[in-house]
Amino acid sequence: MPELRKDPVIGRWVIISTERGKRPTDFSSVPKRRQNKLCPFCPGNESATPPEILAIRPNSSEPNKPGWTLRVISNKFPALRIEGDLNREGRGIFDKMNGVGAHEVIIETPDHDKDLIDLDKKEVEDMLWAYRERTLDLKKDPRFRYILIFKNQGEAAGASLEHSHSQLIATPIVPKRVTEELEGAGKYYEYKERCIFCDIIRQEISEKERVVLQNDSFISIEPFAPRFPFETWILPKKHSSGFEEIKKEETPALAAILKETLQRLAKALNDPPYNYLLHTIPVDSYYNDEYHWHIEIMPKLTKVAGFEWGTGFYINPTAPEDAAGYLREMEI
Amino acid sequence: MPELRKDPVIGRWVIISTERGKRPTDFSSVPKRRQNKLCPFCPGNESATPPEILAIRPNSSEPNKPGWTLRVISNKFPALRIEGDLNREGRGIFDKMNGVGAHEVIIETPDHDKDLIDLDKKEVEDMLWAYRERTLDLKKDPRFRYILIFKNQGEAAGASLEHSHSQLIATPIVPKRVTEELEGAGKYYEYKERCIFCDIIRQEISEKERVVLQNDSFISIEPFAPRFPFETWILPKKHSSGFEEIKKEETPALAAILKETLQRLAKALNDPPYNYLLHTIPVDSYYNDEYHWHIEIMPKLTKVAGFEWGTGFYINPTAPEDAAGYLREMEI
Repeated sequence: MPELRKDPVIGRWVIISTERGKRPTDFSSVPKRRQNKLCPFCPGNESATPPEILAIRPNSSEPNKPGWTLRVISNKFPALRIEGDLNREGRGIFDKMNGVGAHEVIIETPDHDKDLIDLDKKEVEDMLWAYRERTLDLKKDPRFRYILIFKNQGEAAGASLEHSHSQLIATPIVPKRVTEELEGAGKYYEYKERCIFCDIIRQEISEKERVVLQNDSFISIEPFAPRFPFETWILPKKHSSGFEEIKKEETPALAAILKETLQRLAKALNDPPYNYLLHTIPVDSYYNDEYHWHIEIMPKLTKVAGFEWGTGFYINPTAPEDAAGYLREMEI
Repeated sequence: MPELRKDPVIGRWVIISTERGKRPTDFSSVPKRRQNKLCPFCPGNESATPPEILAIRPNSSEPNKPGWTLRVISNKFPALRIEGDLNREGRGIFDKMNGVGAHEVIIETPDHDKDLIDLDKKEVEDMLWAYRERTLDLKKDPRFRYILIFKNQGEAAGASLEHSHSQLIATPIVPKRVTEELEGAGKYYEYKERCIFCDIIRQEISEKERVVLQNDSFISIEPFAPRFPFETWILPKKHSSGFEEIKKEETPALAAILKETLQRLAKALNDPPYNYLLHTIPVDSYYNDEYHWHIEIMPKLTKVAGFEWGTGFYINPTAPEDAAGYLREMEI
């Protein structure tokens, strides 16, 4: 059973995967590519993965057989386990609990050779709708307090399989990074009675220089204080605290801006590895006027080094105004 | 002038190096090694660096000439600039100030081919003493609120030059990660009237399983909730909130445990790239009974991916009890 352990000084939880128990020799500095091995995410290899939780099968093909265009499965090597109770316990100064949670994989396409930006708009919409469906389903489990959807693209960004996929992890605690955003937005709301993200969007639209793209419903910006060069956020223009509140008719606009933003990043930066993640309100909170869901995209261009680990603040060699300019200029 | 900018939601400061202004084509996914170029840190190339701030010259050789065994210089490409005032200003919802600070490099040895673990104990002592000297000197500048000393070893850990060196950055704000530790330690002290780090040390000594090494004055442990496999901390056993309080007669014991801990990590993990950093009390705080200085060593073995960026919590595939066991077993 994986263990959740809490740092006694700063209260940060970590997941110790005691089951995988990596030995020193398991860490290789030489990247291991698995290109020539059977890809468990390809059609025909469905039996190599846990059974599907959700799939889009246009011709009503049988579950766990080929014929799907999108497939959601449990992660075969989950960071957290779906079975069991939390069993919080202390030992002296230290606190831990069982690593209970859900860890799912969204296989975005049957085509092994396509990246997310190669998919057509309908496929990106299906992926976003699957994010919503899985979130709504997992919100019913009272053990979970947060659901994070994210994507690692490219080995340097932490992807262990190259077939295009996103992931979802449901956690029994609200993660630190999200708590910080909730607290920040809460304080601002207390003072101004306005959503801080809505205020950011208003200022960005009026100043223009950090805007990458916008359509009627969504905006894509380089944030004012980005940790990384070309870090890019996508936000709904209309206030909404929970991503899963999205309506079917809004997904085409989100799919369009997500795809075009990623295309511009790929073109400007020569297909960089990247991570994106979706920040939404915690499971056990009511939708509110303070928090505002958004997607954060982080191309992997620089190395996080001692200074960043030691301080939690980042040195970014590209001003967001410049980055936004480069991205706007791209012809795609 | 570099700019310090504050994220309006979570209050995290970032440094925007507008001067270096990296363009998209400056980010290459192919590592650039500079092995065959002149090394500015080698003896004879002193004129390729800014003038020295401190040097150890056993035979009283001339400044900025060969003959030194350790040399401290300003970083030629500083993240923060020593000149000027902070000039805090706001623009709408956003806050920024000038990137004022100090950025120095401690060249640990004249020998280009030696890593820190190859140095003899006296050389490691000199390095630690130089850390202290520079800290005490920079504490006199009223613009600085924190001084972080850190080391990036290996390209994957962010080192841009391979000649062994550490760095020091003095910042005009107390960094987030340090504030979190101070607040955590402060809360614990309020409740227990004991230093939380002293309590951790007591529990680790009694439980033994996470201890890597100890001598009369220092202990090296795998922390209970480490972010990374083989993350290792070194702490003074006797309470002390400021590293720069260290006495000359204590440095041999610190040099010994730092060197041997790094040697064990190098042997167990096949010379991994690593970062270490020294957390001490902020410049403008009095030494106190709550905080406890320490060194955090993080071998670079895993990739930080979407889940970690999105949540701030980490998945660690090696239990610290196992890691400590492997490190204790090494014969060095």
